[in-house]
Amino acid sequence: MITVFAPDGAGEVAAGTDLADLVLRTVAADEHGPLLDGDVVVLTSKVLSKAAGLTRPGSDREAAVDEQTVRTVARRGPTRIVRTRHGLTLAAAGVDASNVAAGTVLVLPADPDAEAAALLAALTARTGLALAVVVSDTAGRAWREGQTDQAIGAAGLRVLLRYAGRQDDYGNDLKVTAMAVADEVAGAADLVKGKLAGRPVAVVRGLGHLVEPAGGPDGTARALVRDPELDMFSHGAREAVLLAALTATGQAARYEQVLALNEPDRTAAVLAGTAPDGEPLGAQAVALVRALLAADLR
Amino acid sequence: MITVFAPDGAGEVAAGTDLADLVLRTVAADEHGPLLDGDVVVLTSKVLSKAAGLTRPGSDREAAVDEQTVRTVARRGPTRIVRTRHGLTLAAAGVDASNVAAGTVLVLPADPDAEAAALLAALTARTGLALAVVVSDTAGRAWREGQTDQAIGAAGLRVLLRYAGRQDDYGNDLKVTAMAVADEVAGAADLVKGKLAGRPVAVVRGLGHLVEPAGGPDGTARALVRDPELDMFSHGAREAVLLAALTATGQAARYEQVLALNEPDRTAAVLAGTAPDGEPLGAQAVALVRALLAADLR
Repeated sequence: MITVFAPDGAGEVAAGTDLADLVLRTVAADEHGPLLDGDVVVLTSKVLSKAAGLTRPGSDREAAVDEQTVRTVARRGPTRIVRTRHGLTLAAAGVDASNVAAGTVLVLPADPDAEAAALLAALTARTGLALAVVVSDTAGRAWREGQTDQAIGAAGLRVLLRYAGRQDDYGNDLKVTAMAVADEVAGAADLVKGKLAGRPVAVVRGLGHLVEPAGGPDGTARALVRDPELDMFSHGAREAVLLAALTATGQAARYEQVLALNEPDRTAAVLAGTAPDGEPLGAQAVALVRALLAADLR
Repeated sequence: MITVFAPDGAGEVAAGTDLADLVLRTVAADEHGPLLDGDVVVLTSKVLSKAAGLTRPGSDREAAVDEQTVRTVARRGPTRIVRTRHGLTLAAAGVDASNVAAGTVLVLPADPDAEAAALLAALTARTGLALAVVVSDTAGRAWREGQTDQAIGAAGLRVLLRYAGRQDDYGNDLKVTAMAVADEVAGAADLVKGKLAGRPVAVVRGLGHLVEPAGGPDGTARALVRDPELDMFSHGAREAVLLAALTATGQAARYEQVLALNEPDRTAAVLAGTAPDGEPLGAQAVALVRALLAADLR
């Protein structure tokens, strides 16, 4: 059995707020407190960012997104999904304008795993308990409506429970190769914290068998990021075609710039390019590129 | 607060097993039983399929995958991710060779929402309680390692908690538009059930405010399937380029057939095609297609 509870009373978090103190104070005041051996403390990235002073003026929002972005994964209308410097795939690079002072935005911490480890060290020092910390963030998914919380930072928790070496009779990998424990923990915490209630901390109790304070290769949220070499969804369907067309016409470096255009202008920009040999595109190749970009990828 | 528990004692499920009886019997025998008003009963799709007799000979595995498949989303080596007739995006269409009799596979129920509704009706008739049912299945995700459980069927639960009409100062949609409640419920249940323990049922207690026996537009798991029109990841990056190249050369109907080839053979097959005007591809266009298919989409 697991129990998940989210204490009230966190109050406003500002630059410099002691988060270990916030966790211990709010959990102790809850009817299910204080913390016990084996508890997993789940904290929203939002309060980490606030405590670290990662607020930016709203007018710098696009610059903040760019700063966090390695490449654009997909873009449609106002929605821009990017791969962040953390390896996360997030709308607007996780730059967040909700539940912050008007006219400001928050950016994600540079290293959420390190922040989780620091908070875990502070909690351990003050309680002597074997605990774990998960830093959660809300994210959309491919193929599915709605958002779930996922783990973007972790310390002291086995984030993946691997079922190694199991294959079916056909030599295919088993359907389940590793349970993404930390993401399911973040989601369970979300069910209790909600989005509007001002409860940035939740405790998941009953997973002590997965709490490993010493950590290990699966002891940080970074282990949940798929290796780009193995990622079949590195780009949205349209964006993959655009990048391929640009690459084929010697313009791969213009990917981000072209993607920022509206869709008719994107096509025109590609058609203005030249073939890999430096010659202008012939009429047949132009027709081909046009068809590529117009292809209905549903 | 929520509590999640997974009773022991389910025993073997076979064609014809009464699942309402299984749920009531195992929950009643658990220290946290019996069921209470507002409980959400989470059941793996595997036991639904077993009870419905959806076992196939292992030799029919590929045929079973094909039968469940609307189109291939991505394919690499032995991994084939498809969109199923349910609208789900799943490796091997959810056809499952684990925890089943040797030499057999299980296919997903044709209508998991209807199965959830039938089970809910049976549980309600026998208890008089306001309950909800979620049918869970394990799935990989784009961009992230490991699998989580998600809801592929639901009845009596508000599967999406919408935050409608909230926009930031820039007119962009709020980062969170709808919490995918049922997927987070399935994930929380997975944390307790595990994969190997023979506990196919879990109860999530404490979400009574989201239990709505009458249902509504967000009362089935189908509401969690993104409209294909809005899906930016309808195809893997390489598959999108392949489909576009085939479309541009008048061979879109050959997409599945070409995708089943190994990668060098795929390229050759495309290059054997003709341009949209029926003329053979010129040398420049062939070079373009070759570059498109070779484009490094990382």
